[in-house]
Amino acid sequence: MAVTRVVIIGAGFAGLNAAKALANRPGIEVTLLDRANHHLFQPLLYQVATAALSPADISAPVRSVLRRARNVQVLMADAQRIDPASRCVETDAGAFTGDYLLIGAGATHAYFGHDAWEPFAPGLKTLPQATAMRARILRAFEQAERCSDRTEQRAWLNFVVVGGGPTGVEMAGAIAEMSRYTLARDFRRIDPRKARVLLVEAGPRLLPAFTERSSARAQRDLATLGVDVRLGCAVTEVAASAVTIGAERIATRTVVWAAGVRASPLAQSLGVPLDPAGRVPVTSGITIAGNDRVFVLGDLAAATDPGSQRPLPGVAQVAIQQGRHAAACILADQRGAARATFRYRDKGQMATIGRQRAICEIGALVLGGRIAWWLWLLVHIMGLTGFRSRASVMLHWGWSFFTYGRGARLIVGREAG
Amino acid sequence: MAVTRVVIIGAGFAGLNAAKALANRPGIEVTLLDRANHHLFQPLLYQVATAALSPADISAPVRSVLRRARNVQVLMADAQRIDPASRCVETDAGAFTGDYLLIGAGATHAYFGHDAWEPFAPGLKTLPQATAMRARILRAFEQAERCSDRTEQRAWLNFVVVGGGPTGVEMAGAIAEMSRYTLARDFRRIDPRKARVLLVEAGPRLLPAFTERSSARAQRDLATLGVDVRLGCAVTEVAASAVTIGAERIATRTVVWAAGVRASPLAQSLGVPLDPAGRVPVTSGITIAGNDRVFVLGDLAAATDPGSQRPLPGVAQVAIQQGRHAAACILADQRGAARATFRYRDKGQMATIGRQRAICEIGALVLGGRIAWWLWLLVHIMGLTGFRSRASVMLHWGWSFFTYGRGARLIVGREAG
Repeated sequence: MAVTRVVIIGAGFAGLNAAKALANRPGIEVTLLDRANHHLFQPLLYQVATAALSPADISAPVRSVLRRARNVQVLMADAQRIDPASRCVETDAGAFTGDYLLIGAGATHAYFGHDAWEPFAPGLKTLPQATAMRARILRAFEQAERCSDRTEQRAWLNFVVVGGGPTGVEMAGAIAEMSRYTLARDFRRIDPRKARVLLVEAGPRLLPAFTERSSARAQRDLATLGVDVRLGCAVTEVAASAVTIGAERIATRTVVWAAGVRASPLAQSLGVPLDPAGRVPVTSGITIAGNDRVFVLGDLAAATDPGSQRPLPGVAQVAIQQGRHAAACILADQRGAARATFRYRDKGQMATIGRQRAICEIGALVLGGRIAWWLWLLVHIMGLTGFRSRASVMLHWGWSFFTYGRGARLIVGREAG
Repeated sequence: MAVTRVVIIGAGFAGLNAAKALANRPGIEVTLLDRANHHLFQPLLYQVATAALSPADISAPVRSVLRRARNVQVLMADAQRIDPASRCVETDAGAFTGDYLLIGAGATHAYFGHDAWEPFAPGLKTLPQATAMRARILRAFEQAERCSDRTEQRAWLNFVVVGGGPTGVEMAGAIAEMSRYTLARDFRRIDPRKARVLLVEAGPRLLPAFTERSSARAQRDLATLGVDVRLGCAVTEVAASAVTIGAERIATRTVVWAAGVRASPLAQSLGVPLDPAGRVPVTSGITIAGNDRVFVLGDLAAATDPGSQRPLPGVAQVAIQQGRHAAACILADQRGAARATFRYRDKGQMATIGRQRAICEIGALVLGGRIAWWLWLLVHIMGLTGFRSRASVMLHWGWSFFTYGRGARLIVGREAG
């Protein structure tokens, strides 16, 4: 039997699940490339940025996850260019050619033409960004405590979160809880509870992917935590010491950017027209048009649900199911069988606002509050890779639940975590 | 009653224990300055550098440790100059003057006039250094796996640890165990078990502070793990791709510097003659000569045990006891009582070599092997600050014990942890 070589770019939810589905299959050889050495459980990244969890709690070494997959070769390499016709990827560790190419290079945050805002309003997509944001938030309180000037002190205690999607809602809720509970009695000159958290959303409601009822609930829950939610407000300027929202100028030193994503620039080398977010339009078989051996998966793909004809959201479940589907297609080709049609099974969506406050939508079922929060906890614990991560996250969450503490309150410059 | 103002520099073992001993004492006001926001449990730093623990596991936010000490003001500030006569510290957050000054600014690693070696042979004193070293060690295996050139591959798999003190012994043992067990089956092109770990010590034996019997035991244990121990060998050159030991040139990309410490440069501003390691000679009352309100503590001090007349070692117990003693002196002065004499109570010393291998010396009792290792575990768990750190370390150690895994295998550039 001829060997089928599969090259996978990216060990995110799509790439890792494709590799797992191809593990130890006879006649298949997989090369999995990622520029990091670990798979990141991105849904909990905001918990690293807000000092609740450590980077290692939400990461798993790709090699160790795939240890028993003897036909999978993991390499730490940075993909730089792709030639879809020859299915060749150029990386800093040489070129790799496969019979199949699976591209799951993901997305980064975007500033819609305002790249100059980035240093003042960092985004949250990677571990270094999360630990840098953690340092930024914690340092703001330290600076406020050091300050003698009242105006400057106020500016350090103003936090602005831009973007009302799940990340923005979760970050705003977590910063508010940190200031209200975790840090409340730790300072002598300032009262951290007086920190002001602003959540700015340009659209008419928070969490636009959810039902209006859930949006309203999230807004109410955030208000209870003291978050100042501004809807229909566009940020017109971000500078080192202030954010401008319409006519209002808010003095702040800590801005979190959760307003937009843009697909990896790797998409550009595919030579196909991209959508406005830089994503690659894919066929109903999640391949690029005219080349059914090049799959584009996860956040990098602009895919449409064949059933509802609605665009698929940029969530873990889409990436996981697409990764598994691509693997199934390769195995079908190997057998000479017809490929199955990709159907996205919507398992629902959830977002957490704070302690015992979350929203869940599973089909027609809409949950909020305490039940939704415990369900959120359960789903995220189960989603983590491996016993160690699960046990560690449970331990730290359990400790936080009873003490209101956050265990990873580390400021370590730009260098460590 | 007049208020006594105490300024403490450094929230290490000395400073933190002094602050705790002065907590909520009437008539005392403490300002504790540190450039970090956390107290670091340095004895376990090598476990972060070798991917066994996360930075947050061995750190505790100084503010949260001293939350209930209402008379202690914690400030994140970098001390730059000290005037011992006026007991004034200049920092990047302004100047602070106390009736008493407690200086516990610690030490950093030193290259004995070979500062050019630092980029190739980093030391291990801070969290950013530990996460950078972890990335360096893990990346070496990744690079070896990527390599097609056999000679280069070998160079990536050579690890050189310089210095046979506790840190050097622990690092060499941990790197050997990682390659023999943790990573053994994770690679496809290389066999990590063939990694070569060299431990180079200029003196005639390892762990010179221990008895000869313990030194011999440590050397035997390291040999069992496959560590190549070189005694009486001085490193004469460290470059980007090789280390020269006497006449031998060893190709390597990963050098760990554990050969020397030097006291913080802050000591220089005290205007007293320093010892060759840059430390401040102190009186039997751990103050500088001629000024009994300026205490110098921990690794910054060159102190002599009044009983044995031997120099006190740079270990946590010395710093803890000195910090408490300084606090007791201030309280005695406040009462108008005579200060007690400082006596170092030697609780023994221990070092770990690897799994179920350690050495302990408590008075005349010399232990090795399994019993010493379990004792080492117990003492270090107890030494950690707070329930969360203890529980987290126990969880990760327990998991590692049963799986031979290391949970924090993260390469996150120079930026995160």
